[in-house]
Amino acid sequence: MPQNQASDVRSFTRLSRRAQWAGGETIASALMARTLGQPELVSLAAGFVDHESLPVDSVRQALETVWADPDCARASLQYGTTAGYPPLREAILDRTLAADREIPRDTPPSLDQVVITAGSNQLLYLVSDALLDPGDVVLCGAPSYFVYLGTLMNLGARAVGVEVDKFGMIPEAIEQQFEQLQHAGELSRVKAIYLTTYFDNPTGITVSGRRRGQILEVAKRWSRCNRIYILEDIAYRELRYYGHEVPSLLAFDSEGDTVIQAGTFSKSFSPGVRVGWGILPPALVEPVLAAKGNFDFGSPNFNQVLMAGILQQGLFQDHVKRLRAAYRKKLDAMLAACDEFLGTIDGIEWVRPAGGLYLWLCLPDRLDTGLDGPLFGQAVAEGVLYVPGMYCFPALKHGIPRHMLRLSFGIPSCENIRRGIAALARAVKHVM
Amino acid sequence: MPQNQASDVRSFTRLSRRAQWAGGETIASALMARTLGQPELVSLAAGFVDHESLPVDSVRQALETVWADPDCARASLQYGTTAGYPPLREAILDRTLAADREIPRDTPPSLDQVVITAGSNQLLYLVSDALLDPGDVVLCGAPSYFVYLGTLMNLGARAVGVEVDKFGMIPEAIEQQFEQLQHAGELSRVKAIYLTTYFDNPTGITVSGRRRGQILEVAKRWSRCNRIYILEDIAYRELRYYGHEVPSLLAFDSEGDTVIQAGTFSKSFSPGVRVGWGILPPALVEPVLAAKGNFDFGSPNFNQVLMAGILQQGLFQDHVKRLRAAYRKKLDAMLAACDEFLGTIDGIEWVRPAGGLYLWLCLPDRLDTGLDGPLFGQAVAEGVLYVPGMYCFPALKHGIPRHMLRLSFGIPSCENIRRGIAALARAVKHVM
Repeated sequence: MPQNQASDVRSFTRLSRRAQWAGGETIASALMARTLGQPELVSLAAGFVDHESLPVDSVRQALETVWADPDCARASLQYGTTAGYPPLREAILDRTLAADREIPRDTPPSLDQVVITAGSNQLLYLVSDALLDPGDVVLCGAPSYFVYLGTLMNLGARAVGVEVDKFGMIPEAIEQQFEQLQHAGELSRVKAIYLTTYFDNPTGITVSGRRRGQILEVAKRWSRCNRIYILEDIAYRELRYYGHEVPSLLAFDSEGDTVIQAGTFSKSFSPGVRVGWGILPPALVEPVLAAKGNFDFGSPNFNQVLMAGILQQGLFQDHVKRLRAAYRKKLDAMLAACDEFLGTIDGIEWVRPAGGLYLWLCLPDRLDTGLDGPLFGQAVAEGVLYVPGMYCFPALKHGIPRHMLRLSFGIPSCENIRRGIAALARAVKHVM
Repeated sequence: MPQNQASDVRSFTRLSRRAQWAGGETIASALMARTLGQPELVSLAAGFVDHESLPVDSVRQALETVWADPDCARASLQYGTTAGYPPLREAILDRTLAADREIPRDTPPSLDQVVITAGSNQLLYLVSDALLDPGDVVLCGAPSYFVYLGTLMNLGARAVGVEVDKFGMIPEAIEQQFEQLQHAGELSRVKAIYLTTYFDNPTGITVSGRRRGQILEVAKRWSRCNRIYILEDIAYRELRYYGHEVPSLLAFDSEGDTVIQAGTFSKSFSPGVRVGWGILPPALVEPVLAAKGNFDFGSPNFNQVLMAGILQQGLFQDHVKRLRAAYRKKLDAMLAACDEFLGTIDGIEWVRPAGGLYLWLCLPDRLDTGLDGPLFGQAVAEGVLYVPGMYCFPALKHGIPRHMLRLSFGIPSCENIRRGIAALARAVKHVM
């Protein structure tokens, strides 16, 4: 229909405030709109996972095992419970406790604190829906995972940015924000601190062990008006290519009342199967299950029975090994290409991630990486696509920095990664 | 943890208004709490589907076909789009237009108006989230599907009850409600009319063709302040055991601007695969997709590719045939048992449904069917469980009737249906 007719129709529809808050073009569609007719582009933008390494054989094997037992197959096609399939929740809890074994606890989380969701993203949404009224505050790293910033906007909540360095969110910066919010009479509006503790999206940074304890301590100490939760996103935890495992922030929470952990098999196994989970403090179990019941009655049983089989048969563990090897090569390729093509340009910096799917580049201050800035258009002309860093920032007092960008190495081949970085270097040199 | 400690912890958590609205015991858990230690109970309460007829072989066949093509298998494990897998959306649209062919339209809905969701329930939630602010009004049948009433409560919206008879929602009663709301200065708060047009949950009633047109006309005529949508729930459309297909309410909407249709394969195929859909008026596509993106990035691709295969290979159609035959026997068994055991009791009435999973009983006025009334306890003692009708009512000016109840015939065998109805008859006679 013609544009003006569409807007007439639209204006006669009175949308909810939430729907109005959620409106606006997505980053993906904004990027796509600017790259039409450029099929040769190397995309270092999309955060998707490597297509070639998707676990076709593992899933076939697990399905055969499920279908070898008609009762199990039939049960997978029936309704389940809102919290999710117990054997899957048990397997997830066991894995979490094993990965965190460096910090043993007297009272570890119990099975009824584990809920299965449609990816970790749905858990983030459910928790935020249960905690946040319009105007409430969540402290987020500056920068942060942009999809979660969108969720906060959709809920009418405020994302307040906290400075990060190469060890993660800076505890003193969190403290400072709390002081300012208290001074403004808004401490009671703060409900949570959100952070990705392993191989952050977008920065690639892993929060150091020391910082984990400090951030937890700050959150507990400032829980004066009400509990300030820590929403720990571990979406990339399994994707470690270098260094040693670190216990999660959850493991530091000896009282078990502060940390909400959100995990997923989307990045480490398959986004198409879309199974994620949360480990919740006891006080949030009932509210999150009530919201989940209203959303979708619990995640599809079929996917959960499948995923439980994949874990029980060791297929997940084998797949993660293969995945790590494949992604490690891609990370190496990206870092080598950066050294080769960008290393000679003054004022470009990046932190070398030990895992995940992202590399975060800081360019000289004067270089605007935005969609309408000179670099983006030049990069597309040279044949490469990136995510402008500005999308990853919550509101900041002194304005959002515009000289950073996010690169992903999940989808492209090593060869294309090298081509993409070379193209980016040409674009940077051209506009400098 | 001890009860008092748990409530301390809980009170220190400041939940959102939504979470507070959503709180409270679910009907399922209330029923369960009252039936502990009664394993011999025949449940005519749960709205689940028949376990024995779940499509184990059809799913195996479809999975084999998907996995025979490694590219297709791999694609099913990757991210999809927020709207959903195009071949599945196409198959759904084709089926809908074919089923509605009695009323051909110049401009039928297009593919971009079809969105895939986690069951029809998620579509109901998404649309309501996009349309309703706290205090907004949805007109619902009295009685209505109780899960949707819970969704409205969770959103802080108001369900206003409209009288129904054996032909469905009464147009004059809708009109009357509009007049009263206008008189109260609240017409601009009305956003939608919700109804299940085929084999309603809980009443079993199918809205007559004549009524469909009338209800649509009333909604359009009262769309003065803003569009008043019709949210048409067709969850049970495929489950017809008697009579002829009727075009959906959507088919009557020749302008295509008023009816939102919510469908699902949960009842007609498998709730464990959990694939539902919506067909949306153009003005709602963008807001619903924005909400869906925030909820879960789109439904799992794996389930959608599977379901598309099931439709394309004719496996769905074959399964529905088998299912109809199985459920028809169960409906017959329930109606026969009602005639035999309840037919002799004065003042008990029911409408004979032509499909679906439910039978709605009206008992004499003085009989309270509530959980704490005399009948419920006696029924459990006699060995049968039902859903008290009061849960299915939105708020009504003159109070909620308490002498009705919902029976389901989806899960129990024909023999158990007969046993259950006999037990119910004994309980009724006992308390009368």
